[in-house]
Amino acid sequence: MSTAMTPDPAAAEQVRADDRDHVFHSWSAQAHVDSLPVAGGSGSYFWDYDGNRYLDFASQLVNLNLGHGHPKLVAAIQEQAARLATIAPAMGSDVRGEAARLIAERSPGDLDRVFFTNGGAEANEHAIRMARLQTGRPVVLSAYRSYHGASGGAIALTGDPRRWENESTGQAVAHFFGPYPYRSAFHADSPEQESERALQHLRDVVQLQGPQTIAAIIQESVVGTNGILVPPPGYVQGVRELCDEYGILLIADEVMAGFGRCGEWFAIDHWGVTPDLITFAKGINSGYVPLGGVIMGPRTTERFAERSYPGGLTYSGHPLACAAAVASIHAFEDENILERTRKLGETVVEPRLQELKDKHASVGDVRGLGMFWAIELVKNKETREPLVPFNASGAAAAPMGAFAAACKQSGLWPFVNMNRTHVVPPLTISEDELSTGLDIIDAALDVADEHTEG
Amino acid sequence: MSTAMTPDPAAAEQVRADDRDHVFHSWSAQAHVDSLPVAGGSGSYFWDYDGNRYLDFASQLVNLNLGHGHPKLVAAIQEQAARLATIAPAMGSDVRGEAARLIAERSPGDLDRVFFTNGGAEANEHAIRMARLQTGRPVVLSAYRSYHGASGGAIALTGDPRRWENESTGQAVAHFFGPYPYRSAFHADSPEQESERALQHLRDVVQLQGPQTIAAIIQESVVGTNGILVPPPGYVQGVRELCDEYGILLIADEVMAGFGRCGEWFAIDHWGVTPDLITFAKGINSGYVPLGGVIMGPRTTERFAERSYPGGLTYSGHPLACAAAVASIHAFEDENILERTRKLGETVVEPRLQELKDKHASVGDVRGLGMFWAIELVKNKETREPLVPFNASGAAAAPMGAFAAACKQSGLWPFVNMNRTHVVPPLTISEDELSTGLDIIDAALDVADEHTEG
Ligand SMILES: Cc1ncc(COP(=O)(O)O)c(C=O)c1O
Ligand SMILES: Cc1ncc(COP(=O)(O)O)c(C=O)c1O
Repeated sequence: MSTAMTPDPAAAEQVRADDRDHVFHSWSAQAHVDSLPVAGGSGSYFWDYDGNRYLDFASQLVNLNLGHGHPKLVAAIQEQAARLATIAPAMGSDVRGEAARLIAERSPGDLDRVFFTNGGAEANEHAIRMARLQTGRPVVLSAYRSYHGASGGAIALTGDPRRWENESTGQAVAHFFGPYPYRSAFHADSPEQESERALQHLRDVVQLQGPQTIAAIIQESVVGTNGILVPPPGYVQGVRELCDEYGILLIADEVMAGFGRCGEWFAIDHWGVTPDLITFAKGINSGYVPLGGVIMGPRTTERFAERSYPGGLTYSGHPLACAAAVASIHAFEDENILERTRKLGETVVEPRLQELKDKHASVGDVRGLGMFWAIELVKNKETREPLVPFNASGAAAAPMGAFAAACKQSGLWPFVNMNRTHVVPPLTISEDELSTGLDIIDAALDVADEHTEG
Repeated sequence: MSTAMTPDPAAAEQVRADDRDHVFHSWSAQAHVDSLPVAGGSGSYFWDYDGNRYLDFASQLVNLNLGHGHPKLVAAIQEQAARLATIAPAMGSDVRGEAARLIAERSPGDLDRVFFTNGGAEANEHAIRMARLQTGRPVVLSAYRSYHGASGGAIALTGDPRRWENESTGQAVAHFFGPYPYRSAFHADSPEQESERALQHLRDVVQLQGPQTIAAIIQESVVGTNGILVPPPGYVQGVRELCDEYGILLIADEVMAGFGRCGEWFAIDHWGVTPDLITFAKGINSGYVPLGGVIMGPRTTERFAERSYPGGLTYSGHPLACAAAVASIHAFEDENILERTRKLGETVVEPRLQELKDKHASVGDVRGLGMFWAIELVKNKETREPLVPFNASGAAAAPMGAFAAACKQSGLWPFVNMNRTHVVPPLTISEDELSTGLDIIDAALDVADEHTEG
C-alpha cells in the first residue's frame, strides 16, 4: 500500500496478479489486458510502483477535473463518511439538497431540479425515460460520433463502434450526423455553412422520421471521446429552434463537457441555450465518488407532480458523492477554475496546438475550447486520410500506439482515441506542467510524422 | 450539520426546502414527496433533526448490512480518500484487485472474476450482455414478481409494476412464474409440489419460447422486494439442471439477497448451486460508496479473452468503493456476521414471527431466512385476500399506511411493500434491538388487525 514513489516491486506484482486473475476489464480483450499498477497520485500526476511518474493529460477518463488528492474534496469525503456515508433516496439529506441547490443555481435558464444517479450512462437512461414520458413519444435522435454510456438505453443512443455488438437492445433510436467541419458530412467549406447544412440535415431526419414520434434529440454539447467536435456558430441555437418547432425536447449530454471542462459550468452556456434536460457526471465531483444526474426544469417536474416517476436507483443522491460535489463546486469558485480554464485554453493550449499543426506533417487539425482539445493525426494533410483507419486495432493502429508509447516514455499519460489525441488534463494543472506536457506531445508527434506520406 | 440528537428545527427546515425545491425523487409523484430529514445515524438507528430516533428495520433499501457508521468501513474510506480516491478502470489498483480476489474466493464453484459496476441495475445490464454474447442468443427469461433495476435493460427484466411505464425498451425478455407456496400459481399444496410444478412451468416456457433462442434465466436467489420468496426444496437445483440441458446460462441476482443478508455470502449457497453469473451490489459494502458487479467463471471470461467485451463504465472498480468492500468483507469475518445472521434468524426472528402469525388476524404468512423475512398481511386468513389490493396506492393502501405510521410512531422504520412488511434490519443489530423492533411490529399489527374481516 505504498503511496511514496520509492519502487516497490512486490506490491506491483501483487496488483498485477490480482488484476490478471480476478478483474474483468471494460472494453477489452481480457487476455491482452496489461494494466499499469498505480501506487498513488497528486494533482496532475500519478505514479506506479516502479518510481515512474506520469503527467495525466487524460484526467483519467476526462473526469479528474480537480486533479488527484484535492484537499477540499478529500476532507469533505472524510467528514461525510464519519457523519453519515449513506441514506436512502426517500429520506431528506442535507448534502444532497445542498448539492442539488448549488447545481440548480449554476444551471441555465429555468433548470432548477436534479435527479441524481451513479454515473453518466444512468443519467442518460433516466433523461430519455423522462423525455419519452413527458412527450408521450417513443423515438430519440442522437448523433453518430457520440458516446452516451453502456447500459441498455444509453448504448442504443451511442453513435460510435461501441454500440455495434449491442444492437439487440431494440430501443427506438435514430442517428444523425452532427457538424464536424474538418470532415464535413455535408461538403461544407466554412463553419457557417457547416452549421446551416447540419441543421438542414437534422431537419430532414426529423421530417422523415416523423416529428410527432420524436421525444428528444440528445447530443453532447461538445462531442467528447468522438473527437472534441465544437459546434460551429449558430448550430446549437438552430437545434434548439428546431426542437421548439416540433415540441421535441433537447437533452444536453454534459457528462464529459460539463462542470468546467469547457471553461463554463456547462458547455452549452457558450451558446446561451437552455436545453430541456442536462445530463452530467465526471466533473461534478471529479469522480472521487461515483455520481451523475439529470437537471430538469418545471415542465419536466410538472409531468411527474401527480403521476409517479417510474424510475429510481438505490444510491440516488448518495450523501458521500454529494458531499464531494458540494466541495467541488466550492473549490471551483474559490480557485477561479472556470476563468483559469478559459484563460489557459486560449493563451497556452490553443496557440501551442496551432504551432504543432504548422510544424508536424501528421497534424491535420487542432480544435477545442477550455481544457478540451483534440489533435487529429493524418497520413496526408491534403487528403486528410486518418493516420490509422477508423476503429483500427492491433497492427493497423500501430502508428497511434507508437505515439502513445513515446508520450509515456517521456512521462506523459495521453488520451488516445482512433487517430486522435486529446489534450484534457486536470483544470488545476499549472502553466508549467501544461507547457511540459505540450513539449512531450510535440516530441512524440515526431514519431507520428514518420508514419505520414509527407 | 448537526449529528447529535438535540433538536435543530432550522437545519431541518433547510433540508426540507432544498429537497422540495431542487431534488427529484425516485418512484415518486414529486408534489407529494415529504422526506424525513435525516440528521445522523449509528448502528441500527438513524435520527431526524427533531430528536426522533428510528430503529432501521429496512436497512435503508436493504443495503445497510453493517449498519450506520461502522468504524472499519469509515476508516477504510477515509484512508483511501487520502491515498487515491479514484483511478481509471484501465489502470491496476491494489484495492480493486484485492476486492475482486476476496469476492472470488467467497464465490461458489469456479466463479473467480469480477466486473465492477456502480450499482445493481448496471450489474444486471452487463450480466445479460455477457450472457447474450457468450451464448449468441437474444432472449432472457425472468420472473414475474422480481426487481432487477431501472435502466433500459434491467427494467425490461423486472417483473413487477415498476416495469409498466417502461415497456418501450423493446428488449427480448419473457417472464415466467417462480415458486410462491403461499399463493401458488400452480395450485400446489406442498412446498415439494410447488417446486416440481414451478419447474414444469419453467420448462414449458423454455420449450415454447424456443430453447435455442434463450441466453439466460435470471432470478433473484431469494426474491426480495417482491416478497421474500424463498425457493422450496429442489427448485434452484432444478433450474440449474434445466439450464444445463439447454445450454442456457443461469444468472443469480444477489443484489439484495447476497453478502450476508441470507446468512451466507450468497443466498444461492443454501442450495449448493453454482450459477454462471452472479450480480451483486448493496451488501457488498453496505452502500457506503456506490458499488455493484458481476461475478463470472472461466467460460464467460474465455468468450472475451481474444474478443473485446463491448461494455464498460467510467467508475468500474472505483477504488473508494472497493476499499469499503474490502473492509466490509473483513468486518464480516472478524465479527462472525454470517453465523450470527443465521442464528438470529433461526432463534429470534422465526419463532417470533410464527407467534405473530398465530396471534394476529392480519398475518397470513411469515417466511424468510437469515435476516430476510416477510410478514404478509391479509384481510382474511381463509381466503388469503391481501390486506390491500395489488399495487394499491392512496386510499386503497391506507391500512398498510396505518401500520407503517404506527411503527414510526413507536420509533421503528419499517420496510413496506404492497401488503407486506419485511423484517430486514442491519445484520449487526443486537438481540435486544431486534426484540424491541419485533415488539413494535407486534403492536403495530394490532392496527392492521382492525382492517381484517376476522
Ligand atoms: C458524453 C458521455 N456521456 C456518457 C458517458 C457515460 O458515463 P459513465 O461511464 O459514467 O456511465 C460518458 C463516458 O465517458 C461520456 O463521455
Ligand atoms: C434484486 C435487485 N436487483 C437489482 C436492484 C437494482 O439495484 P440498484 O438500485 O443499485 O440499481 C435491486 C434494488 O433494489 C434489487 O433488489
